[in-house]
Amino acid sequence: MRALPPKIQRLIEAFTVLPGVGERTASRYALNLFYQNKEVKEELGGAISGLIEGVQACVKCGHLAEGELCQICLDPTRDSGLICVVENPLDIVALERMGGYRGYYHVLGGLISPLAGVGPDDLAISTLLERLKKQLKTGGAAEVVLATDPSLEGEATANYLAQLVKDWPGLKTTRIARGLPMGADLEYADEVTLARAFEGRDVYKN
Amino acid sequence: MRALPPKIQRLIEAFTVLPGVGERTASRYALNLFYQNKEVKEELGGAISGLIEGVQACVKCGHLAEGELCQICLDPTRDSGLICVVENPLDIVALERMGGYRGYYHVLGGLISPLAGVGPDDLAISTLLERLKKQLKTGGAAEVVLATDPSLEGEATANYLAQLVKDWPGLKTTRIARGLPMGADLEYADEVTLARAFEGRDVYKN
Repeated sequence: MRALPPKIQRLIEAFTVLPGVGERTASRYALNLFYQNKEVKEELGGAISGLIEGVQACVKCGHLAEGELCQICLDPTRDSGLICVVENPLDIVALERMGGYRGYYHVLGGLISPLAGVGPDDLAISTLLERLKKQLKTGGAAEVVLATDPSLEGEATANYLAQLVKDWPGLKTTRIARGLPMGADLEYADEVTLARAFEGRDVYKN
Repeated sequence: MRALPPKIQRLIEAFTVLPGVGERTASRYALNLFYQNKEVKEELGGAISGLIEGVQACVKCGHLAEGELCQICLDPTRDSGLICVVENPLDIVALERMGGYRGYYHVLGGLISPLAGVGPDDLAISTLLERLKKQLKTGGAAEVVLATDPSLEGEATANYLAQLVKDWPGLKTTRIARGLPMGADLEYADEVTLARAFEGRDVYKN
Protein backbone atom coordinates (compact mmCIF):
# COMPACT_ATOMS: atom_id res chain seq x y z
CA MET A 1 0.00 0.00 0.00
CA ARG A 2 2.35 2.68 -1.20
CA ALA A 3 0.68 5.94 -2.23
CA LEU A 4 -1.33 6.20 1.01
CA PRO A 5 -0.50 8.28 4.09
CA PRO A 6 1.12 6.32 6.97
CA LYS A 7 -1.94 6.82 9.22
CA ILE A 8 -4.20 5.16 6.69
CA GLN A 9 -1.64 2.41 6.10
CA ARG A 10 -1.53 1.78 9.84
CA LEU A 11 -5.33 1.49 10.00
CA ILE A 12 -5.43 -0.86 7.01
CA GLU A 13 -2.87 -3.08 8.71
CA ALA A 14 -4.81 -2.97 11.99
CA PHE A 15 -8.03 -4.04 10.25
CA THR A 16 -6.38 -7.15 8.81
CA VAL A 17 -6.38 -8.75 12.29
CA LEU A 18 -10.13 -9.30 11.87
CA PRO A 19 -11.17 -12.73 10.61
CA GLY A 20 -11.44 -12.98 6.82
CA VAL A 21 -10.23 -9.41 6.30
CA GLY A 22 -7.39 -9.13 3.78
CA GLU A 23 -5.62 -6.04 2.56
CA ARG A 24 -8.31 -5.15 0.04
CA THR A 25 -11.22 -5.37 2.46
CA ALA A 26 -9.18 -3.54 5.08
CA SER A 27 -8.49 -0.77 2.56
CA ARG A 28 -12.20 -0.41 1.82
CA TYR A 29 -12.96 -0.24 5.54
CA ALA A 30 -10.25 2.35 6.20
CA LEU A 31 -11.24 4.55 3.29
CA ASN A 32 -14.92 4.33 4.13
CA LEU A 33 -14.21 5.19 7.73
CA PHE A 34 -12.10 8.15 6.64
CA TYR A 35 -15.12 9.64 4.85
CA GLN A 36 -17.46 9.02 7.82
CA ASN A 37 -17.96 11.86 10.27
CA LYS A 38 -15.98 12.28 13.46
CA GLU A 39 -18.65 10.81 15.75
CA VAL A 40 -18.71 7.51 13.86
CA LYS A 41 -14.92 7.19 14.12
CA GLU A 42 -14.99 8.06 17.81
CA GLU A 43 -17.75 5.54 18.47
CA LEU A 44 -15.92 2.65 16.78
CA GLY A 45 -12.60 3.59 18.37
CA GLY A 46 -14.25 3.96 21.76
CA ALA A 47 -16.15 0.69 21.51
CA ILE A 48 -12.89 -1.14 20.79
CA SER A 49 -11.13 0.53 23.71
CA GLY A 50 -14.13 -0.36 25.89
CA LEU A 51 -13.41 -3.98 25.13
CA ILE A 52 -9.96 -3.81 26.71
CA GLU A 53 -11.32 -3.36 30.20
CA GLY A 54 -14.50 -4.75 31.61
CA VAL A 55 -15.40 -7.60 29.29
CA GLN A 56 -14.29 -11.07 30.31
CA ALA A 57 -15.26 -14.69 30.09
CA CYS A 58 -17.93 -15.76 32.61
CA VAL A 59 -16.12 -17.73 35.30
CA LYS A 60 -18.89 -20.33 35.32
CA CYS A 61 -19.82 -20.98 31.70
CA GLY A 62 -17.24 -19.09 29.60
CA HIS A 63 -19.78 -16.83 27.87
CA LEU A 64 -18.94 -13.13 27.53
CA ALA A 65 -19.64 -11.17 30.70
CA GLU A 66 -19.11 -7.67 32.08
CA GLY A 67 -18.79 -8.95 35.63
CA GLU A 68 -17.74 -12.31 37.05
CA LEU A 69 -20.86 -14.02 35.76
CA CYS A 70 -22.69 -13.58 32.44
CA GLN A 71 -26.30 -12.45 32.13
CA ILE A 72 -27.48 -16.02 31.60
CA CYS A 73 -25.69 -17.52 34.63
CA LEU A 74 -27.10 -14.62 36.69
CA ASP A 75 -30.66 -15.58 35.73
CA PRO A 76 -32.02 -17.78 38.58
CA THR A 77 -35.22 -18.67 36.72
CA ARG A 78 -33.45 -21.01 34.34
CA ASP A 79 -33.38 -24.78 34.65
CA SER A 80 -30.14 -25.72 36.41
CA GLY A 81 -30.58 -29.35 35.36
CA LEU A 82 -30.01 -28.47 31.73
CA ILE A 83 -26.59 -27.54 30.32
CA CYS A 84 -26.06 -26.93 26.63
CA VAL A 85 -22.46 -27.29 25.44
CA VAL A 86 -21.38 -25.00 22.60
CA GLU A 87 -18.17 -24.01 20.87
CA ASN A 88 -18.30 -20.23 21.32
CA PRO A 89 -20.42 -17.32 22.58
CA LEU A 90 -21.95 -16.63 19.16
CA ASP A 91 -23.56 -20.08 19.31
CA ILE A 92 -25.28 -18.94 22.50
CA VAL A 93 -26.52 -15.84 20.70
CA ALA A 94 -27.98 -18.05 17.95
CA LEU A 95 -29.69 -20.40 20.44
CA GLU A 96 -31.07 -17.49 22.46
CA ARG A 97 -32.39 -15.96 19.24
CA MET A 98 -34.20 -19.24 18.61
CA GLY A 99 -35.86 -18.81 22.02
CA GLY A 100 -37.53 -21.52 24.06
CA TYR A 101 -34.38 -22.93 25.65
CA ARG A 102 -34.48 -22.34 29.41
CA GLY A 103 -31.32 -24.05 30.62
CA TYR A 104 -27.75 -22.83 31.02
CA TYR A 105 -24.78 -23.03 28.66
CA HIS A 106 -21.16 -24.08 28.69
CA VAL A 107 -18.64 -22.62 26.24
CA LEU A 108 -15.83 -25.00 25.24
CA GLY A 109 -13.79 -22.28 23.56
CA GLY A 110 -13.07 -24.43 20.53
CA LEU A 111 -13.41 -27.91 19.06
CA ILE A 112 -11.05 -30.86 19.12
CA SER A 113 -8.98 -30.62 15.96
CA PRO A 114 -5.73 -32.59 15.72
CA LEU A 115 -4.86 -30.83 12.47
CA ALA A 116 -5.07 -27.40 14.11
CA GLY A 117 -3.26 -28.74 17.20
CA VAL A 118 -6.30 -28.39 19.47
CA GLY A 119 -6.69 -31.24 21.95
CA PRO A 120 -9.20 -31.85 24.77
CA ASP A 121 -6.87 -30.12 27.26
CA ASP A 122 -7.21 -26.86 25.33
CA LEU A 123 -10.98 -26.81 25.89
CA ALA A 124 -13.04 -25.98 28.99
CA ILE A 125 -13.91 -29.61 29.63
CA SER A 126 -12.82 -30.06 33.27
CA THR A 127 -15.03 -27.16 34.37
CA LEU A 128 -17.93 -28.73 32.49
CA LEU A 129 -17.44 -32.05 34.29
CA GLU A 130 -17.32 -30.24 37.64
CA ARG A 131 -20.54 -28.39 36.89
CA LEU A 132 -22.27 -31.65 35.92
CA LYS A 133 -20.99 -33.46 39.02
CA LYS A 134 -22.21 -30.66 41.27
CA GLN A 135 -25.63 -30.61 39.62
CA LEU A 136 -25.99 -34.41 39.91
CA LYS A 137 -25.00 -34.18 43.58
CA THR A 138 -27.43 -31.38 44.46
CA GLY A 139 -30.23 -31.97 41.94
CA GLY A 140 -29.93 -35.70 41.39
CA ALA A 141 -30.41 -35.45 37.64
CA ALA A 142 -29.15 -33.44 34.69
CA GLU A 143 -29.21 -33.32 30.92
CA VAL A 144 -26.21 -32.22 28.91
CA VAL A 145 -27.08 -31.16 25.35
CA LEU A 146 -24.11 -31.45 23.02
CA ALA A 147 -24.66 -28.58 20.58
CA THR A 148 -21.32 -28.44 18.79
CA ASP A 149 -21.36 -27.91 15.01
CA PRO A 150 -22.24 -30.91 12.79
CA SER A 151 -18.73 -30.77 11.33
CA LEU A 152 -15.89 -33.27 11.57
CA GLU A 153 -14.46 -31.44 14.60
CA GLY A 154 -17.86 -30.85 16.16
CA GLU A 155 -18.84 -34.50 15.89
CA ALA A 156 -15.46 -35.62 17.26
CA THR A 157 -15.80 -33.24 20.21
CA ALA A 158 -19.38 -34.33 20.96
CA ASN A 159 -18.30 -37.95 20.74
CA TYR A 160 -15.36 -37.36 23.08
CA LEU A 161 -17.57 -35.64 25.66
CA ALA A 162 -20.26 -38.32 25.41
CA GLN A 163 -17.63 -41.01 26.12
CA LEU A 164 -16.35 -39.07 29.16
CA VAL A 165 -19.74 -38.95 30.89
CA LYS A 166 -20.99 -42.33 29.71
CA ASP A 167 -22.77 -44.27 32.49
CA TRP A 168 -22.81 -41.33 34.92
CA PRO A 169 -25.89 -42.08 37.02
CA GLY A 170 -28.71 -39.56 36.56
CA LEU A 171 -27.09 -37.90 33.55
CA LYS A 172 -28.82 -37.85 30.19
CA THR A 173 -26.56 -36.98 27.26
CA THR A 174 -28.24 -35.66 24.11
CA ARG A 175 -27.04 -34.34 20.76
CA ILE A 176 -28.83 -31.75 18.62
CA ALA A 177 -30.48 -33.35 15.58
CA ARG A 178 -28.69 -33.42 12.26
CA GLY A 179 -30.87 -33.61 9.16
CA LEU A 180 -32.22 -31.54 6.31
CA PRO A 181 -32.46 -27.84 7.15
CA MET A 182 -35.89 -26.23 6.78
CA GLY A 183 -36.54 -25.08 3.23
CA ALA A 184 -33.95 -27.47 1.80
CA ASP A 185 -34.40 -29.31 -1.48
CA LEU A 186 -33.95 -33.06 -0.98
CA GLU A 187 -32.52 -33.62 -4.43
CA TYR A 188 -29.65 -31.22 -3.75
CA ALA A 189 -28.84 -32.46 -0.25
CA ASP A 190 -25.38 -33.99 0.26
CA GLU A 191 -25.08 -37.68 1.09
CA VAL A 192 -23.95 -37.24 4.69
CA THR A 193 -26.82 -34.91 5.55
CA LEU A 194 -29.28 -37.23 3.85
CA ALA A 195 -27.91 -40.26 5.70
CA ARG A 196 -28.20 -38.38 9.00
CA ALA A 197 -31.77 -37.35 8.20
CA PHE A 198 -32.61 -40.99 7.48
CA GLU A 199 -30.93 -42.34 10.59
CA GLY A 200 -32.67 -39.72 12.71
CA ARG A 201 -36.14 -40.38 11.28
CA ASP A 202 -38.93 -40.39 13.83
CA VAL A 203 -42.46 -41.73 14.08
CA TYR A 204 -44.79 -39.30 12.33
CA LYS A 205 -46.87 -37.35 14.82
CA ASN A 206 -50.22 -35.99 13.70
CA MET B 1 -28.26 -9.44 19.99
CA ARG B 2 -29.66 -10.23 23.37
CA ALA B 3 -27.51 -12.54 25.46
CA LEU B 4 -24.39 -10.44 24.95
CA PRO B 5 -22.92 -7.84 27.32
CA PRO B 6 -23.73 -4.19 26.41
CA LYS B 7 -20.08 -3.43 25.62
CA ILE B 8 -19.98 -6.18 23.02
CA GLN B 9 -23.35 -5.11 21.65
CA ARG B 10 -22.04 -1.57 21.31
CA LEU B 11 -18.99 -2.78 19.40
CA ILE B 12 -21.12 -4.95 17.10
CA GLU B 13 -23.28 -1.95 16.30
CA ALA B 14 -20.22 0.23 15.71
CA PHE B 15 -18.75 -2.30 13.27
CA THR B 16 -21.91 -2.25 11.14
CA VAL B 17 -20.97 1.25 9.87
CA LEU B 18 -18.30 -0.41 7.73
CA PRO B 19 -19.31 -1.16 4.12
CA GLY B 20 -20.85 -4.59 3.61
CA VAL B 21 -20.72 -5.44 7.30
CA GLY B 22 -24.03 -6.69 8.69
CA GLU B 23 -24.84 -7.87 12.18
CA ARG B 24 -23.41 -11.33 11.67
CA THR B 25 -20.07 -10.20 10.31
CA ALA B 26 -19.91 -7.49 12.97
CA SER B 27 -20.52 -10.15 15.65
CA ARG B 28 -17.69 -12.27 14.29
CA TYR B 29 -15.37 -9.26 14.27
CA ALA B 30 -16.32 -8.25 17.82
CA LEU B 31 -15.95 -11.75 19.21
CA ASN B 32 -12.66 -12.32 17.45
CA LEU B 33 -11.33 -9.01 18.68
CA PHE B 34 -12.39 -9.88 22.22
CA TYR B 35 -10.16 -12.96 22.12
CA GLN B 36 -7.20 -11.03 20.70
CA ASN B 37 -4.66 -9.67 23.15
CA LYS B 38 -4.72 -6.16 24.55
CA GLU B 39 -2.07 -4.79 22.16
CA VAL B 40 -4.09 -5.74 19.09
CA LYS B 41 -7.18 -4.00 20.47
CA GLU B 42 -5.18 -0.92 21.39
CA GLU B 43 -3.59 -0.78 17.96
CA LEU B 44 -6.92 -0.94 16.09
CA GLY B 45 -8.59 1.53 18.46
CA GLY B 46 -5.62 3.87 18.24
CA ALA B 47 -5.40 3.65 14.46
CA ILE B 48 -9.06 4.66 14.21
CA SER B 49 -8.58 7.57 16.60
CA GLY B 50 -5.51 8.59 14.60
CA LEU B 51 -7.78 9.01 11.61
CA ILE B 52 -9.83 11.70 13.35
CA GLU B 53 -7.01 14.21 13.29
CA GLY B 54 -4.31 14.64 10.72
CA VAL B 55 -5.64 12.86 7.65
CA GLN B 56 -7.36 14.99 5.04
CA ALA B 57 -8.00 15.25 1.35
CA CYS B 58 -5.12 16.70 -0.68
CA VAL B 59 -6.10 20.27 -1.56
CA LYS B 60 -4.81 19.82 -5.08
CA CYS B 61 -5.95 16.36 -6.22
CA GLY B 62 -8.27 15.05 -3.48
CA HIS B 63 -6.12 12.02 -2.63
CA LEU B 64 -5.58 11.19 1.06
CA ALA B 65 -2.87 13.29 2.64
CA GLU B 66 -1.39 13.95 6.05
CA GLY B 67 -0.52 17.53 5.19
CA GLU B 68 -1.97 19.96 2.67
CA LEU B 69 -0.65 17.99 -0.27
CA CYS B 70 -0.50 14.22 -0.81
CA GLN B 71 2.71 12.28 -1.38
CA ILE B 72 2.08 12.16 -5.12
CA CYS B 73 1.43 15.90 -5.56
CA LEU B 74 4.59 16.54 -3.51
CA ASP B 75 6.68 14.51 -5.97
CA PRO B 76 8.25 17.03 -8.42
CA THR B 77 9.68 14.31 -10.70
CA ARG B 78 6.29 13.40 -12.11
CA ASP B 79 4.97 14.59 -15.47
CA SER B 80 2.75 17.61 -14.86
CA GLY B 81 1.28 17.32 -18.35
CA LEU B 82 -0.48 14.09 -17.43
CA ILE B 83 -3.52 13.97 -15.15
CA CYS B 84 -5.37 10.73 -14.50
CA VAL B 85 -8.98 11.16 -13.29
CA VAL B 86 -10.26 8.52 -10.85
CA GLU B 87 -13.29 8.01 -8.63
CA ASN B 88 -11.55 7.51 -5.26
CA PRO B 89 -8.14 7.16 -3.54
CA LEU B 90 -8.19 3.33 -3.73
CA ASP B 91 -8.14 3.62 -7.51
CA ILE B 92 -4.87 5.54 -7.12
CA VAL B 93 -3.51 2.75 -4.95
CA ALA B 94 -4.39 0.22 -7.67
CA LEU B 95 -2.79 2.31 -10.42
CA GLU B 96 0.35 2.93 -8.34
CA ARG B 97 0.55 -0.82 -7.64
CA MET B 98 0.49 -1.32 -11.40
CA GLY B 99 3.53 0.95 -11.65
CA GLY B 100 4.78 2.77 -14.71
CA TYR B 101 2.42 5.73 -14.56
CA ARG B 102 4.40 8.91 -13.95
CA GLY B 103 1.73 11.60 -14.07
CA TYR B 104 -0.51 13.08 -11.38
CA TYR B 105 -4.04 12.17 -10.36
CA HIS B 106 -7.37 13.85 -9.74
CA VAL B 107 -9.96 12.31 -7.41
CA LEU B 108 -13.57 13.05 -8.33
CA GLY B 109 -14.93 11.72 -5.05
CA GLY B 110 -17.71 9.78 -6.77
CA LEU B 111 -19.39 9.14 -10.11
CA ILE B 112 -22.40 10.79 -11.71
CA SER B 113 -25.39 8.72 -10.69
CA PRO B 114 -28.88 10.22 -11.05
CA LEU B 115 -30.38 7.25 -9.17
CA ALA B 116 -28.13 7.88 -6.15
CA GLY B 117 -28.72 11.62 -6.44
CA VAL B 118 -25.12 12.39 -7.39
CA GLY B 119 -24.79 15.10 -10.03
CA PRO B 120 -21.72 16.78 -11.59
CA ASP B 121 -21.83 19.51 -8.95
CA ASP B 122 -21.17 16.92 -6.23
CA LEU B 123 -17.87 15.93 -7.83
CA ALA B 124 -14.50 17.69 -7.86
CA ILE B 125 -14.86 18.76 -11.49
CA SER B 126 -14.28 22.52 -11.30
CA THR B 127 -10.91 21.99 -9.61
CA LEU B 128 -9.99 19.54 -12.38
CA LEU B 129 -10.84 22.07 -15.08
CA GLU B 130 -8.76 24.70 -13.30
CA ARG B 131 -5.79 22.37 -13.07
CA LEU B 132 -6.06 21.55 -16.77
CA LYS B 133 -6.38 25.24 -17.74
CA LYS B 134 -3.34 26.11 -15.67
CA GLN B 135 -1.30 23.30 -17.20
CA LEU B 136 -2.30 24.28 -20.74
CA LYS B 137 -1.33 27.88 -19.99
CA THR B 138 2.07 27.08 -18.52
CA GLY B 139 2.96 23.89 -20.36
CA GLY B 140 1.08 24.35 -23.59
CA ALA B 141 -0.14 20.77 -23.70
CA ALA B 142 -1.71 18.17 -21.44
CA GLU B 143 -3.32 14.76 -21.47
CA VAL B 144 -6.24 13.89 -19.23
CA VAL B 145 -6.73 10.15 -18.79
CA LEU B 146 -10.29 9.29 -17.84
CA ALA B 147 -9.87 6.25 -15.57
CA THR B 148 -13.32 5.91 -14.04
CA ASP B 149 -14.80 2.41 -13.73
CA PRO B 150 -16.20 0.77 -16.87
CA SER B 151 -19.68 0.81 -15.25
CA LEU B 152 -22.81 2.71 -16.26
CA GLU B 153 -21.90 5.54 -13.87
CA GLY B 154 -18.21 5.46 -14.77
CA GLU B 155 -18.94 5.68 -18.50
CA ALA B 156 -21.46 8.47 -17.97
CA THR B 157 -18.96 10.43 -15.89
CA ALA B 158 -16.14 9.93 -18.41
CA ASN B 159 -18.47 10.98 -21.20
CA TYR B 160 -19.57 14.07 -19.30
CA LEU B 161 -15.97 15.12 -18.64
CA ALA B 162 -14.94 14.45 -22.23
CA GLN B 163 -17.75 16.72 -23.47
CA LEU B 164 -16.67 19.49 -21.08
CA VAL B 165 -13.12 19.68 -22.39
CA LYS B 166 -13.89 18.90 -26.03
CA ASP B 167 -11.93 21.11 -28.44
CA TRP B 168 -9.71 22.62 -25.75
CA PRO B 169 -6.56 23.46 -27.71
CA GLY B 170 -3.55 21.39 -26.68
CA LEU B 171 -5.57 18.96 -24.58
CA LYS B 172 -5.65 15.27 -25.40
CA THR B 173 -8.46 13.35 -23.72
CA THR B 174 -8.04 9.59 -23.39
CA ARG B 175 -10.05 6.77 -21.80
CA ILE B 176 -8.57 3.58 -20.31
CA ALA B 177 -9.23 0.57 -22.56
CA ARG B 178 -12.18 -1.69 -21.95
CA GLY B 179 -11.90 -5.27 -23.14
CA LEU B 180 -11.34 -8.81 -21.97
CA PRO B 181 -9.37 -8.98 -18.72
CA MET B 182 -6.15 -11.01 -18.77
CA GLY B 183 -6.80 -14.69 -18.12
CA ALA B 184 -10.45 -14.42 -19.17
CA ASP B 185 -12.26 -17.12 -21.11
CA LEU B 186 -13.83 -15.67 -24.27
CA GLU B 187 -16.75 -18.07 -24.25
CA TYR B 188 -17.85 -16.84 -20.82
CA ALA B 189 -17.40 -13.11 -21.47
CA ASP B 190 -20.55 -10.97 -21.36
CA GLU B 191 -21.80 -9.30 -24.55
CA VAL B 192 -20.92 -5.75 -23.54
CA THR B 193 -17.33 -6.63 -22.65
CA LEU B 194 -16.98 -8.60 -25.86
CA ALA B 195 -18.43 -5.74 -27.92
CA ARG B 196 -15.97 -3.32 -26.27
CA ALA B 197 -13.08 -5.69 -26.93
CA PHE B 198 -14.10 -5.86 -30.59
CA GLU B 199 -14.56 -2.11 -30.97
CA GLY B 200 -11.22 -1.50 -29.32
CA ARG B 201 -9.30 -4.01 -31.45
CA ASP B 202 -5.91 -2.79 -32.61
CA VAL B 203 -3.43 -3.68 -35.34
CA TYR B 204 -1.41 -6.67 -34.21
CA LYS B 205 2.12 -5.67 -33.27
CA ASN B 206 4.84 -8.26 -33.53
